[in-house]
Amino acid sequence: MVKIDLIPFEEFERVREARIDRYEQSRLIADMCRANTLSAVKRAGSGHLGSSFSAMDIVVWLYYQEMNTLQAGLDNPDRDIYFSSKGHDVPGLYAVLHSLGVIPEAKLLMLRRLGGLDGHPEVHIPGIEANSGSLGMGISKGRGMAWAKRLGGHGGQVYVLTGDGELQEGQNYEALQATVQQRIGNLTVIVDHNKLQSDRLLDEIVGLGDLEAKFNAFGWQVARCDGHDLEQIERVLAEFKAIRDRPKILIADTIKGRGVSFMEHPVALPAGGGLYRWHAGAPPDGDFLAAHREVVGRLNQRLTGLSLDPLQLTDVTPEPGPPSGVSDEYVAQAYGDALVDIAARRPDLVLLDGDLSADCRIRGFELAYPERFIENGIAEQDMVSMAGGLARMGLLPVVNSFASFLASRANEQIYNNACEGTKILYGCHFAGLLPAGPGKSHQSIRDISLFGALPNCTILEPCNAAEARMAVEYWVDQATESCALRLIIGPSPRIIALPPEYRFRLGRGVTLTQGGDAILFAYGPVMLHEALTACETLQQRGFGLEVVNMPWLNRVDRRWLTELIEPHRAIWVLEDHAPVGGLGDTLLNALVAEGALEGRRFEKIGVDGYPACGAPREVLRHHRLDGASLAERILVGQPVA
Amino acid sequence: MVKIDLIPFEEFERVREARIDRYEQSRLIADMCRANTLSAVKRAGSGHLGSSFSAMDIVVWLYYQEMNTLQAGLDNPDRDIYFSSKGHDVPGLYAVLHSLGVIPEAKLLMLRRLGGLDGHPEVHIPGIEANSGSLGMGISKGRGMAWAKRLGGHGGQVYVLTGDGELQEGQNYEALQATVQQRIGNLTVIVDHNKLQSDRLLDEIVGLGDLEAKFNAFGWQVARCDGHDLEQIERVLAEFKAIRDRPKILIADTIKGRGVSFMEHPVALPAGGGLYRWHAGAPPDGDFLAAHREVVGRLNQRLTGLSLDPLQLTDVTPEPGPPSGVSDEYVAQAYGDALVDIAARRPDLVLLDGDLSADCRIRGFELAYPERFIENGIAEQDMVSMAGGLARMGLLPVVNSFASFLASRANEQIYNNACEGTKILYGCHFAGLLPAGPGKSHQSIRDISLFGALPNCTILEPCNAAEARMAVEYWVDQATESCALRLIIGPSPRIIALPPEYRFRLGRGVTLTQGGDAILFAYGPVMLHEALTACETLQQRGFGLEVVNMPWLNRVDRRWLTELIEPHRAIWVLEDHAPVGGLGDTLLNALVAEGALEGRRFEKIGVDGYPACGAPREVLRHHRLDGASLAERILVGQPVA
Repeated sequence: MVKIDLIPFEEFERVREARIDRYEQSRLIADMCRANTLSAVKRAGSGHLGSSFSAMDIVVWLYYQEMNTLQAGLDNPDRDIYFSSKGHDVPGLYAVLHSLGVIPEAKLLMLRRLGGLDGHPEVHIPGIEANSGSLGMGISKGRGMAWAKRLGGHGGQVYVLTGDGELQEGQNYEALQATVQQRIGNLTVIVDHNKLQSDRLLDEIVGLGDLEAKFNAFGWQVARCDGHDLEQIERVLAEFKAIRDRPKILIADTIKGRGVSFMEHPVALPAGGGLYRWHAGAPPDGDFLAAHREVVGRLNQRLTGLSLDPLQLTDVTPEPGPPSGVSDEYVAQAYGDALVDIAARRPDLVLLDGDLSADCRIRGFELAYPERFIENGIAEQDMVSMAGGLARMGLLPVVNSFASFLASRANEQIYNNACEGTKILYGCHFAGLLPAGPGKSHQSIRDISLFGALPNCTILEPCNAAEARMAVEYWVDQATESCALRLIIGPSPRIIALPPEYRFRLGRGVTLTQGGDAILFAYGPVMLHEALTACETLQQRGFGLEVVNMPWLNRVDRRWLTELIEPHRAIWVLEDHAPVGGLGDTLLNALVAEGALEGRRFEKIGVDGYPACGAPREVLRHHRLDGASLAERILVGQPVA
Repeated sequence: MVKIDLIPFEEFERVREARIDRYEQSRLIADMCRANTLSAVKRAGSGHLGSSFSAMDIVVWLYYQEMNTLQAGLDNPDRDIYFSSKGHDVPGLYAVLHSLGVIPEAKLLMLRRLGGLDGHPEVHIPGIEANSGSLGMGISKGRGMAWAKRLGGHGGQVYVLTGDGELQEGQNYEALQATVQQRIGNLTVIVDHNKLQSDRLLDEIVGLGDLEAKFNAFGWQVARCDGHDLEQIERVLAEFKAIRDRPKILIADTIKGRGVSFMEHPVALPAGGGLYRWHAGAPPDGDFLAAHREVVGRLNQRLTGLSLDPLQLTDVTPEPGPPSGVSDEYVAQAYGDALVDIAARRPDLVLLDGDLSADCRIRGFELAYPERFIENGIAEQDMVSMAGGLARMGLLPVVNSFASFLASRANEQIYNNACEGTKILYGCHFAGLLPAGPGKSHQSIRDISLFGALPNCTILEPCNAAEARMAVEYWVDQATESCALRLIIGPSPRIIALPPEYRFRLGRGVTLTQGGDAILFAYGPVMLHEALTACETLQQRGFGLEVVNMPWLNRVDRRWLTELIEPHRAIWVLEDHAPVGGLGDTLLNALVAEGALEGRRFEKIGVDGYPACGAPREVLRHHRLDGASLAERILVGQPVA
């Protein structure tokens, strides 16, 4: 690992105490926080730099010059409140809270680690006022806080930062309307208008039109300024403070990646051929070092110019961890490739995307069939209902987003489509517990239950690339109803080997390992890997575990099932999901209906409680879902002979 | 029942063939359809007159003068397409489709009856292009249809009618943005701008501000006209047809209840003391007769003026049905009353409403504590996130909407709040299968499953007024987490008697009838009534059924449960929900975990498939959930001794 340096808290104290003007001080602090954001993200191995940087000047100005939050105390009902609705910029906020002594250095170094700082904001962390991570909820929630202040007669302003791509979510407009109607005067919204979405220009995804005219039409007090010009920000916020009878919104024009020359979007976008590289993920070593040196170099130059000593840095290079040991297989890539292949023979196949084309591995389709690719922006409800209209006209729509957003936010639209009896494929990406770094807004362990009570929707999860293709082909060629296809977003921990004679048949899984002491059903690359690891461990202890890959999560061939479990006295189900509403309940109901549970033990193992944030192995172990823990649980839970 | 007349199809043919100008013809047809809408709704006993009437002139003009739909054929890909996003105005559309010979008279007389015409639009009905009923999805779905036409090179315009209150739903704004981005030129939206929501002025709920400026800011081609002036409508639609590079929206200023003097909102609103009476529900006999006579009288006067014969009407008075036999208890009223009482001692209690104050029986709270009542309009996501902000500030928020909308549309916002660990009560009204007249957009049989995988949310359903109060008090005084409280919207079929010593204890239900042959768990007034009816029937056949009221739908005291079922060999669970993800799965998992299923039969009975539309008794019978069917199912399913 490359050397990673952190600017310690004491250095922030030194700059705070220096006799320099407040603008210069804030600019220094902001760059110091940028350097620390870089280091924290590099240590974590993931995190969002681009919008942490675009928002940094605003966030530092608010905490250092505008808000009474720290003086009043984090529990004071009269405090000013700040939170970011687009919570992925939280590494920047953590760095600011560290600079203020709210978050200790040890915590900052635990970004995206178990027991550390979650990948998206969580209220259990000091200084964090609201959970976010799924977009578009902030103005609504901020209004609730502002309304409560008014009811209680409390002082303090509520500041909500939003993204601009985030403004594609319809909930924002619900909130804009209601805030005016409710005459909320103690809420200020700031739009971090950096013009970019995950990797492309907002105007190429779904443009926002004339934002000022739009907010004016909704009845808000609107201002616009350079979001990196502290004097301008100060002036607008001062004007806003005098307005107490209506909500206020500042469109802050910013630069994504601000502060690192090659990450600033006017440079980075052309360099990336129209794609922006620095939205998410830790930079490679060379880029990290160049970025960090640039920021620290600039800081030292400025400090010297102010007759201050250069920065003293702390080496926070982590110990090298164990090798990650994953395969190069991505089931989502196989899914994306299958869709491209099928499109050649099915002119009715169309794809919809919610600004996650790269993550959902459908960029290949986007390039190959642009006329059948619909970029819908961050607006899952609209995307799903549009798919409903496409399907009503006889097309075969495939909707893509993360499982946590799609199954949940667009749930009623999915129900409405299902009621019409059309055939739609819901590509539910980032399904399951891992990766656990982004935190619980992104980890999806409820989606099976959210689709489960639809009478005419089949829920599937493939265990490897070959099965991902089988599942897509099943939906296209055989299914008569909609399907929800769960796909993990990361690489498969190992490539699950399917028997050569395996065929994808409705309601039937397949045995992967023979074993006479217990049977365990699992699905998807992540949990099947743990199941097979458990099996290997148990084998060494003389315990034979039959591991079954069961890709059908709410459909089961009962005859197949009863024959399969016949030799076993102990039946286990391993969920990449909460224990409620997953495969286990499907199998349990089938077994009970067949009277096949008599004399047998049945146990579900799933993600209990909320999914923890952290590195994959530590989170699996935390939930006792790693192979070693599973082996132990199975041994302990084995029925006594 | 009062005499009900219908204008038969032949009379529409006569007017169509008469040599009169197209404006006069359309005005006659529209009033004839108004008369038939009145009759159909009166026969059905429910349905939405106010907005059927405000939209009628537009709908008739589209079908009779603008669209090629009927000439081209309902399956023709080049056809013009019309549907209403605010589907509750479908009685008016049915009357228009009847006038055109698409829907036969026999069907029109079966409004909201099993095998007839659903209370909200359903694509299985000829001429219906999209399911709607939950608001705000129409522009998205219409865009899907328009996009598919463009891909396929097909002609035809897509016309989507929206309400104005409906524009509070954020999905509309997602759709407005994406439609411009995608350069959809074959979509025309018409806003039926009648200025009223369910029973109050839109501006009193959540105003829309300057609608024209708003739509312009979103980049649409905007026009505005009198929605009852056919010449104006014709002119705007002609202008729109010439514009093919962008979407078009017509704000049609209309009068709610148009065509019946005392239902027109400028008259009806002051007459109702600021509340509008004619949004939903069949008018009482006298009002029905007065309205029908007024419309038919005006028609005959006009026909005579045109030297045409007066209308020949068909008597369609229904046979008197069996008495409904319900009690005067409303569990939702007890809930509303309890909240008022608790508010006196809990100044932190605040209520949020989604424009359903009367239906949710919280108008008492609204009047008693206006400063703690938040009217949020038809914007469930915003309402739920606002409640999250209120709760973060230490308040106790109670969110109110229909279960089908709240649990589904705001699902991700509920999850986000739950992740913060605050305590919120979700009042899930109109839970379950009944009333079945509104159809599947409103019947809520998935909500338990939608809350079920939240680790920290208790789901409850009270069986009577006393238990409704206990449940609210439990949440206020004892619960440490959020609760979802299911409440039926109609009267209790009977008042369920609870034992005098009954106490509301976490995870424990209560035996209502003794019986040694089987045990049946049920919840809520509707299904417990059927369960008790089944018990009475079975008793006559010498079969003893123990009926248990189980208000805790995802929490169970396992010791209580295992002791309770100990004497029984057959365990039944009756769901007012789909069989997936309800109480049955909770009990089954608990029994299996306790090893208490050995030697016992376990059966769930729930709403299989989609909930049918119809009168309560016929729908219960259709799903084999009425007492008689239940008795039979239990006898047949009983384990052989």
